[in-house]
Formats: sequence, structure tokens, C-alpha cells
Amino acid sequence: MSIWFTEKQTENFGITMKINKTYVSEQTEFQKLDMVETEEFGNMLILDGMVMTTQKDEFVYHEMVAHVPLFTHPNPKNVLVVGGGDGGVIREVLKHPSVEKAVLVEIDGKVIEYSKQYLPEIAGDLENPRVEVKVDDGFMHIATSNNEYDVIMVDSTEPVGPAAKLFEKGFYEGISKALKEDGIFVAQTDNPWFTPELISQVFSDVSEIFPITRLYTANIPTYPSGLWTFTIGSKKHDPLEVPASRFHDIETKYWTPQLHTAAFALPKFVSDLIKK
Amino acid sequence: MSIWFTEKQTENFGITMKINKTYVSEQTEFQKLDMVETEEFGNMLILDGMVMTTQKDEFVYHEMVAHVPLFTHPNPKNVLVVGGGDGGVIREVLKHPSVEKAVLVEIDGKVIEYSKQYLPEIAGDLENPRVEVKVDDGFMHIATSNNEYDVIMVDSTEPVGPAAKLFEKGFYEGISKALKEDGIFVAQTDNPWFTPELISQVFSDVSEIFPITRLYTANIPTYPSGLWTFTIGSKKHDPLEVPASRFHDIETKYWTPQLHTAAFALPKFVSDLIKK
Repeated sequence: MSIWFTEKQTENFGITMKINKTYVSEQTEFQKLDMVETEEFGNMLILDGMVMTTQKDEFVYHEMVAHVPLFTHPNPKNVLVVGGGDGGVIREVLKHPSVEKAVLVEIDGKVIEYSKQYLPEIAGDLENPRVEVKVDDGFMHIATSNNEYDVIMVDSTEPVGPAAKLFEKGFYEGISKALKEDGIFVAQTDNPWFTPELISQVFSDVSEIFPITRLYTANIPTYPSGLWTFTIGSKKHDPLEVPASRFHDIETKYWTPQLHTAAFALPKFVSDLIKK
Repeated sequence: MSIWFTEKQTENFGITMKINKTYVSEQTEFQKLDMVETEEFGNMLILDGMVMTTQKDEFVYHEMVAHVPLFTHPNPKNVLVVGGGDGGVIREVLKHPSVEKAVLVEIDGKVIEYSKQYLPEIAGDLENPRVEVKVDDGFMHIATSNNEYDVIMVDSTEPVGPAAKLFEKGFYEGISKALKEDGIFVAQTDNPWFTPELISQVFSDVSEIFPITRLYTANIPTYPSGLWTFTIGSKKHDPLEVPASRFHDIETKYWTPQLHTAAFALPKFVSDLIKK
């Protein structure tokens, strides 16, 4: 017998892959959590039926969400990751020696627990002394933070279920308040093929709050359409004006200094989504 | 009843989509040809079980295979498309007013016939007086051409079946001979996630024949991994040194002058594939 997992990424389109083993299939307090071993992508975390991360391609998302804002800021010391309980963004954040403290606020402790067990090369750095892990509501954490962070990454699930409010304008206003006066934030904002309206809406909302708003992309094979977008809101520093001297050596598999800039060169139909 | 087509892009991974209607399902002289209507991507051409083109996302492949080499050449007049019987590359080639003659050599006349019928907005320009359509073996056409073309595009199927010999070094030697002294060619070279060895091999082969060899990428949601690569071999003109003044206005949905350059900024793991 051969077992296949299919994620319907839209009503009419999906990806399907062979599953060797199911480690966990559990309804947590917040969502359905499945941890499986796939033949093609290694171990894989699924939340509410949607692929969150896999051992084979996780580096793309984690590197691109972390290094673009961190190299844009001249001296990031205090960093917040909202969501991201698998630990992958934290692992990348710690590659920046200027970072003194990285706070992870994940609403679902089970994501952290099972990631440590089944995705150790992703979650391993959650034990690092520079990291503070809080099992808490990221929305509430933002609402009660003031002038605290240099960089905030919103590593959320899709805008349904527990993460829905992380795509609302009020949340971005809270982020602005939680950031220092030259702070930067980035959020994953889905794909332009199946959810173009979301990208337009978030970009418009962020533009009304942050003087510098930018959109960039990366290729993630297990995410819908393979083309993922990230939206940056920045109070002072422009990701397109990073001096070459700021790019220190870090070990990566996707991000490069050239890609840092090239990722903002959008396909025409994508840049049309964020035209005023 | 709901009917779904699944393409296994590897042994253990695939895409699946809802089919409304099957227009054609036929064994031609060369391959299995299916033409269907999908709910998500519109009409879709499938050859030997692999998605070739869809109405919704065809513009990415066709624009990126055509405009990158055509803008790299200062004055492309004679252009050859090997394969590409759907006509999409030809449509883009004709957007360049310098092109006097565009020859299409497609081995399977049925691809042309059914594309005209079911993909008219892709195949429509095959009737243009600047176009010459030959139903013939592209490999043989190349073998008998000398010093004839400014730009050659290899718009082949995968390196199995009728297109296998279009990925061999001898074919690239023939292309070099068929090109004029400052000619350029481009070939689609699959994706870096599932077929990294192919990319390395082709790049290495082309490098031994052409003084300038470059790799670039584009996002195509219905192709394996969503990240497609194209390999350029050029005798004289470097795609990375196109003067900005050469980019004349053309109507596109993916290609832009910025992307022309940015598409060559490769993810680290991809550039590692083509390191000497």
C-alpha cells in the first residue's frame, strides 16, 4: 500500500506526496497538527491540512524572512518572531552576531514540542541562551509592546484560523508601536497566483502606516504556486539601499547578497498588484 | 463526479487539478497528447502526462524564453524556435520589430493543430507572415543549418521521449554552427530541486562550446517545483551587459527590464550547481 497526502491549495488545485510514516496526528488547542515523513521532502509539519515546513525546502522561507530585514537594519539587537514555532527563523536570526536577544512568541506549544522532536535541525537553536521562547498569543504580545524591537518577523500560518488577525491593519499598527524608531518588520503574505487580493490589501494597509513598504519573493516548492511573497514595512531603512559593506559572511543555501536585491524585482503582474 | 488530473512530477510528488472537460486524448506519431479544460488554469496541453502549457500561466515561460535572449542580441533578425508547437514563444518573438523571420520547427504537427484550436491566444500568431512553420525534426534542422540564425530558442519537452537528443552536447554543437558569429541560444533546462544533475550537465556542456554561458530562472506554478531554469549560450553578447537603452517597450505580464537582470541572481544552491 502506498499512502499519499494531498493538500488542496485552492478548491481546484493541489500538491500530493508520498508519506512513509505518520508521527503525530493531533488536534491541539488551536489547530490540527500532523507531523509526517515524506519520501520527497523529508519530515514535514502540516497545520490544518496545509504544509508549513519540510526538511528539504525549509531553508528558503527561513533564510528569506530573516536575512532580508536583518541586513536592512544597520544594527539589529532585539528581534521578535511572531509564530514560527518550528524554530527555523530563530536559527537564521542567530547567524547575525549583533542580535542580543531573539524572542519567539508562538501560540501553540505543541508546534514547538513536536518540531524539537521531529525537526531537530530546524528547531535546535530554540535552546540557545540568546533566545527567549514564550508560548503566548502573538497579537496580545504585540499589543502590549512599546518601542522595544529593532526587527519583527511575522511567521504566521495562512489568514484563516488562529492567524487571521495577524493579517489585519490593527495588527500592523501594533507592530509599528512595538518597533523602535528605526524598526523594520516583515510578514509572509502568501502568493500572487491564487491570493492576489491579499497581497494588494496588506501592501496598502502597511503603506498607510510605514513610510517604506516593499514586496519581495522567493521560490518555495511546497507552498502554493511555488512563488511566495514577503511584505516589509520599515520606519527608516530601505531594503533596497543596503550598502554592500553591510553584508557579512553567513552560511546560507538560498539567500545571497545579490538575491537580497534581486528578490525585489517583481514579475510585472505582481508589481501591478501593489500599484497605488 | 469530479475528475482530477494528477501529474507525478517525481516518483513521490505531484500536482493535481480539477478537469472540467477533455477535448483531445490521442496517441500521435510521437507522444500522448491530451488537451483539457481545467478549473484553475484554463485550457491545458499535456504531453506524455506532463503539463506543457496552460492559459493562466503560459505567459511566464513564453516571455522569459523569448525576451531575455532577444534583448541580449543588439539586432535579432532571423530567429529559430525548436519545438514550441503551441506558438507561445513565436507570439513573444514577434513583439520585437527587428525580427524579419521567425522559423518554428515542431516535430509533431498535432501539437500545432490542437493548439490553434484550443489555445488560440497562444497559437494565433503562427499565421503571421513573418513566421515560417515547419513540421520537422528540430535536431535534423539544426544539423543542416549553417551560420543562419541570430537567436535560437529550444522550447522542448522533458529530456525523455522525442526531446531526449535535444539535451545532448552534440545538439549544442549543432546550434553553435547554425548560429551566426554573434548568435545566442537559450534552452529550458528543468528545475533545480528535482533535476539538479541535468542543470549541471547542460551548463558544463554549453560552457565548453560557448564563450558566454548563463543560467536564469522564472516561476512557473504548473512546472515541477515552480522554479524553472533556462540556460543561455552566447558567442559574443552577454545577457548581463545589456545597455538600458536597448529595452524598448513591449507588453508583458512577467518580464520587465529589471527582471531581465534579476533573473540571473540565483539562489545559492542553484549557483552551486554550475560552479566549475
